[in-house]
Amino acid sequence: MTVSRTVELEGHIIDSGTMQRCFEVIMDLGGDFDVEAFDVGRAKDEESYARLRVLAPDDATLQSIVHELHQSGVNPADPEDATLTPAPADRVVPAGFYSTTNHPTDVRVGGEWIEVADIEMDCAIVVEDPEGEPTARTQVLNGIEADDLVVTGEAGIRVRPPDRPRDASGAFGFMRGGVSAERPSESRIRKVAEALAAVKAEGGNVLVVAGPAVIHSGAGDALAELVREGYVDALSAGNGFATHDIERGLYGTSLGMNIETLEHPRKGHKHHIYTISEIVRAGGIAEAVDDGLVTEGVMYECVQNDVDYVLAGSIRDDGPLPDTITDTVEAQGEIRRQAHEADMVVMLSTLLHSVAVGNCLPSSTRVVCVDINPATVTQLLDRGSAQAVGLVTDVGTFVPTLADELLGDD
Amino acid sequence: MTVSRTVELEGHIIDSGTMQRCFEVIMDLGGDFDVEAFDVGRAKDEESYARLRVLAPDDATLQSIVHELHQSGVNPADPEDATLTPAPADRVVPAGFYSTTNHPTDVRVGGEWIEVADIEMDCAIVVEDPEGEPTARTQVLNGIEADDLVVTGEAGIRVRPPDRPRDASGAFGFMRGGVSAERPSESRIRKVAEALAAVKAEGGNVLVVAGPAVIHSGAGDALAELVREGYVDALSAGNGFATHDIERGLYGTSLGMNIETLEHPRKGHKHHIYTISEIVRAGGIAEAVDDGLVTEGVMYECVQNDVDYVLAGSIRDDGPLPDTITDTVEAQGEIRRQAHEADMVVMLSTLLHSVAVGNCLPSSTRVVCVDINPATVTQLLDRGSAQAVGLVTDVGTFVPTLADELLGDD
Amino acid sequence: MTVSRTVELEGHIIDSGTMQRCFEVIMDLGGDFDVEAFDVGRAKDEESYARLRVLAPDDATLQSIVHELHQSGVNPADPEDATLTPAPADRVVPAGFYSTTNHPTDVRVGGEWIEVADIEMDCAIVVEDPEGEPTARTQVLNGIEADDLVVTGEAGIRVRPPDRPRDASGAFGFMRGGVSAERPSESRIRKVAEALAAVKAEGGNVLVVAGPAVIHSGAGDALAELVREGYVDALSAGNGFATHDIERGLYGTSLGMNIETLEHPRKGHKHHIYTISEIVRAGGIAEAVDDGLVTEGVMYECVQNDVDYVLAGSIRDDGPLPDTITDTVEAQGEIRRQAHEADMVVMLSTLLHSVAVGNCLPSSTRVVCVDINPATVTQLLDRGSAQAVGLVTDVGTFVPTLADELLGDD
Amino acid sequence: MTVSRTVELEGHIIDSGTMQRCFEVIMDLGGDFDVEAFDVGRAKDEESYARLRVLAPDDATLQSIVHELHQSGVNPADPEDATLTPAPADRVVPAGFYSTTNHPTDVRVGGEWIEVADIEMDCAIVVEDPEGEPTARTQVLNGIEADDLVVTGEAGIRVRPPDRPRDASGAFGFMRGGVSAERPSESRIRKVAEALAAVKAEGGNVLVVAGPAVIHSGAGDALAELVREGYVDALSAGNGFATHDIERGLYGTSLGMNIETLEHPRKGHKHHIYTISEIVRAGGIAEAVDDGLVTEGVMYECVQNDVDYVLAGSIRDDGPLPDTITDTVEAQGEIRRQAHEADMVVMLSTLLHSVAVGNCLPSSTRVVCVDINPATVTQLLDRGSAQAVGLVTDVGTFVPTLADELLGDD
Repeated sequence: MTVSRTVELEGHIIDSGTMQRCFEVIMDLGGDFDVEAFDVGRAKDEESYARLRVLAPDDATLQSIVHELHQSGVNPADPEDATLTPAPADRVVPAGFYSTTNHPTDVRVGGEWIEVADIEMDCAIVVEDPEGEPTARTQVLNGIEADDLVVTGEAGIRVRPPDRPRDASGAFGFMRGGVSAERPSESRIRKVAEALAAVKAEGGNVLVVAGPAVIHSGAGDALAELVREGYVDALSAGNGFATHDIERGLYGTSLGMNIETLEHPRKGHKHHIYTISEIVRAGGIAEAVDDGLVTEGVMYECVQNDVDYVLAGSIRDDGPLPDTITDTVEAQGEIRRQAHEADMVVMLSTLLHSVAVGNCLPSSTRVVCVDINPATVTQLLDRGSAQAVGLVTDVGTFVPTLADELLGDD
Repeated sequence: MTVSRTVELEGHIIDSGTMQRCFEVIMDLGGDFDVEAFDVGRAKDEESYARLRVLAPDDATLQSIVHELHQSGVNPADPEDATLTPAPADRVVPAGFYSTTNHPTDVRVGGEWIEVADIEMDCAIVVEDPEGEPTARTQVLNGIEADDLVVTGEAGIRVRPPDRPRDASGAFGFMRGGVSAERPSESRIRKVAEALAAVKAEGGNVLVVAGPAVIHSGAGDALAELVREGYVDALSAGNGFATHDIERGLYGTSLGMNIETLEHPRKGHKHHIYTISEIVRAGGIAEAVDDGLVTEGVMYECVQNDVDYVLAGSIRDDGPLPDTITDTVEAQGEIRRQAHEADMVVMLSTLLHSVAVGNCLPSSTRVVCVDINPATVTQLLDRGSAQAVGLVTDVGTFVPTLADELLGDD
Repeated sequence: MTVSRTVELEGHIIDSGTMQRCFEVIMDLGGDFDVEAFDVGRAKDEESYARLRVLAPDDATLQSIVHELHQSGVNPADPEDATLTPAPADRVVPAGFYSTTNHPTDVRVGGEWIEVADIEMDCAIVVEDPEGEPTARTQVLNGIEADDLVVTGEAGIRVRPPDRPRDASGAFGFMRGGVSAERPSESRIRKVAEALAAVKAEGGNVLVVAGPAVIHSGAGDALAELVREGYVDALSAGNGFATHDIERGLYGTSLGMNIETLEHPRKGHKHHIYTISEIVRAGGIAEAVDDGLVTEGVMYECVQNDVDYVLAGSIRDDGPLPDTITDTVEAQGEIRRQAHEADMVVMLSTLLHSVAVGNCLPSSTRVVCVDINPATVTQLLDRGSAQAVGLVTDVGTFVPTLADELLGDD
Repeated sequence: MTVSRTVELEGHIIDSGTMQRCFEVIMDLGGDFDVEAFDVGRAKDEESYARLRVLAPDDATLQSIVHELHQSGVNPADPEDATLTPAPADRVVPAGFYSTTNHPTDVRVGGEWIEVADIEMDCAIVVEDPEGEPTARTQVLNGIEADDLVVTGEAGIRVRPPDRPRDASGAFGFMRGGVSAERPSESRIRKVAEALAAVKAEGGNVLVVAGPAVIHSGAGDALAELVREGYVDALSAGNGFATHDIERGLYGTSLGMNIETLEHPRKGHKHHIYTISEIVRAGGIAEAVDDGLVTEGVMYECVQNDVDYVLAGSIRDDGPLPDTITDTVEAQGEIRRQAHEADMVVMLSTLLHSVAVGNCLPSSTRVVCVDINPATVTQLLDRGSAQAVGLVTDVGTFVPTLADELLGDD
């Protein structure tokens, strides 16, 4: 006995490797196929279309194949409506719930495809008002409430992975092949500057994710300047970043070393603790700026320029500062909000915060990831975003060079 | 005008570099000194004693020198009582508060030296009942309450850095020089096994700090065996570690790959999310063990053997599991408790949790830090513990080899 | 005006990505195509076939496309004979010479396809006796002699990239995705052991490439055992490896540290120099073995078991030992010979020697590359061999674990 | 029975740790001591003096202690003449030969101390004309000739380790603590620029050691500019560096990627082979410059400005270029000459060439070592030079920033 189902591929299915993965999946899982239609988009901006009849020896195999194809954006030609199942209790998803990818996704409700809002990976999809004016959104597992209508199974879901850009000369097409330090650093930073300027020119939202190494490596001034000049709309960081940034303003040091003179002043290794106690005394960063205590630095510029900053807590925090959100679920909520608003994300030397932000990003958001450790860059790029580029370079020279490109030397 | 103060050095002041640092500090800061007494401990277990008169051109310089000497365990010969100042408000330390090192420390109250309980770095010291039966303890800044008597200034404080062991053949004396992978791996693992066995033989408490890479690298079985056989008293980990450990029991996979066969089963990349939803449904890990859902793995053995586990939350967590402590300050409290109870700490492939635990450790606790990334090991050892050793090796072969050494091959 | 040429794709063209690269190349370079035939191999061991008519606006574009396709193993359907041009002088290739890939390659001479012997990357192809019984071989540039008949242009050349194995459960199919330490170490070592045993069972030749870190990390005994038990047919290493291996036998140390006790004996840091002077005195390694001076270790076992070893010189060598080939071109010749004889290559913790061997390998030779530094493994795997797997692990535990798997614990 | 010998310590024995090592050695090896004199240099530029009577239970122990002390620059107060033994044959050192450190060293011949010329590590010392006007020089083991008078034993040798500079604000005093990327990058590059300018201002010789990553990372222009402007007196590199530098001039690419546009032109991956064949055809680099073939780049500037360049061969070389010295012993000789002439060495992203140069350097030569991989920097700094500083940064931004500092932006 042979069972079959017809699937469709649309978009830049050749460049993006979708077609290859499709064939691989079918054959790996013991199926077979006929190519019913194959229409190749010739010009760079034309899309392709293919229709395949997938054959399998039994229903279970066919279902496996269709599931795997689905993850790659290959969808059945004869879609059904999605299955909606009420959540049995708060925080408890129904059995067989559909867990999202980070690609743009539609669900079919009442015969119509509706887009899932705020798509991100590893969430459930909740549909509201399916009989009336249905809407769909992602929901993290611990945000599920009893009786939420959760999509289960895989019917009626359509995934649209973004295309890998074919044009290498574009702002985001400059990265091919693996992660390596052996790439032209300055030319690549120039490309990032062009991309960032383009996003700002279109009124886009730029989110910077920054670790304490930005400050330790002496890049604080350049980042503060980018904030002041309006290139940064939001900052996602932690208690350590803010503490060391403010310490630098108050004492000139970071990790106890003077950033300019490279001297280690007496008690330098206690400056971060003194900084925290000063800010606690003031009541918070904004208050310390208002009081005239904090007069420079990245956090100062964020306060003065109404840049949306989120300081997420971690178990290695000293203090923490009053502005730090110590509950990780609450902090994730704020990070999620920033991630969804961003059109471009620049990740600077922080694995923890970059992963946290990256978890909330759809695959279509542009991401630049900078770290001196190639393993960190690789790990961040492995999230399957076609729009992400990685630079293995020194953040201490990257940010000043980027600022020079954007702001000129004058 | 010349001012002076006499300071004393005691212990293995030569081996540990204390004397060298002492001379350096005095001369770097513009002082001078006379060696009034210098008694060298000849035998390996004899201590040395030196008394120096420190000279300086003015009081400020003298105070600077005495402060820096103090950090290195060189204390004034003519101690005064510590200054106690009430905290002005909750979470607010008095100005000039003394910020602790991680070395054993005494404060002088009413003419008597009392030891500061639960010493750890970057805390305040709170003294209770100074007029009656005084006690002293460390307090993290955000745990300070109004009117707590906090030590300010530097008078009346005595720091005792532990000696670097002179005998290289001892269990913890095998590491000299920097961090490198180019060391005899199996011989060094054997030394760790000997040290761990010695700690257990003395009834000591062993804390294991573990990251998800322990599971991904296939070392879960070996760690579970060490827990079952009583070599682990406490486990400090995160949501990711527990999730992947349980996923492996439920599905045989970790990061979607079968640990044994190295195959990638269908939907494998969703197993960790399914795992979380199963444990949420059960109500927690212990409940899932009781229900017979979880029947193997590290977390299973912890539950079955009453091993104290703490799962600290982080902003990159999926879920999280109900057992995860999502408030980072609360989680730090639990980690602090584990750290203070530990006689030996084994850190396995997690920078975040290792730093969090390391922050709470006195410099006298034995620490073994294992990571394949030398930068991680270096960062963890930089905390100034003379008792810490680092191994740059693969945790996926380290834990099984350690288990073989401890448990034999049968 | 449109010009066209018909090309053919054969083999596992979907799995191996050949078809995708083919489409990409055509469109990236401004061409177009018609799919004239497309025959998909359904079963895992069936090959596919496709015939495409490539269209381009002009001859230059068409030639560019055909060149790039050629590199990926897509060859014209209507082949011509290769163009043969005599070399103008010793070491001087004719203009427009064809520079080889590392894939199995044929050249067309007198209407017949003949295989190029000893294929390796970045060489010229020299054809002998084209009118009689033609043969073809690769020749490194500095080995070209005046009047050698060198293939120029790209006509009449057929490249056959090996297929990426579709079956993940095979000995060499276990590695997918990037390089990471977060893989099940022991399961992967078991797979390597199976592959090595399989090669030996078929009478294959195993080449081990080893750096000094093998000795420093304490894996020397295990490697010596593998040599003694016949698992190693050839050893490619350097002066440092041999020196430290022999030092360990003579003094028990490596880098001045006793491998077993981890002690640093007096003068330990001079042992490698004493070792070299002892071997120089004896006249060489084999002589030192014969004299009874060297009685254990990897080099000893190589001598005793007639294992073909090559010690290639480098500018960082101390000494060197008399066995070291100090001319790099001569050493490359010996390495080339070893590489061509090998059926499986195991690279252990040496970038320099591994690159040197890798440069001489056809893409069809099985390669296992082990290093604790992921950047090294990535760099070695980037040579485009579908048969190469990388393990980011500690060579100090890898070799003993591999030996245990192959030889048992008894 | 107790035997004794009096030793002396001179110089900045406290700052440099000499005194501490001295005490450690004596006690580790089972000795004892009396401090007979101890004169501390108070001001920063005053030296200290100590005289110790070392006691030991037997002659063997005493000799061990004196040997170890000697390595640290602690010398007997009652020196004897050095023992001179003729070499038994070419390349064969006499038994018990003295193997050098990299510290300035004197030998005592005929009651007079004479300095050993061209000191470097792991060599023999050869004395000429001991009865007349004695001179002493280092000799590598394979350069020993029969009947050379070689120093054996340890009598009559005086080692003078350089002091670690006490003043952190000096050009070479800015590095304390370990190797880490988390340092202020631009401030540190500024310090390197100051040091380099100071060396040039004093008429000193600057040797640059450069790997191919300098070119791949886009820093070639900046380095060429530094050569043109006279900041570089000598270049030590390999075949790969020169090939990629010239490839960039000829084709605009490096590793097949256009350095400016980041595009991958067709046949780009063959450009390095074409480059080599072009230079072979021309007869060498200087000839290719004369012919007008090579018109820009680092090698071009070296030729035009008579900068002494050495291209040392390695077994991973393609080609090689005719300028490459393929014999490693001969290449070492040239590298040795460059190293001995240098007053300051800047090592850029090459482990192989940096180790080769470093092996020939006395510990008193200033070294700056730049690499993005902290393990490389650590390995290079481990050679015990107090004058070496390491920067973990991106060479692709380091060289341009350094050039900006030295040459200004105009």
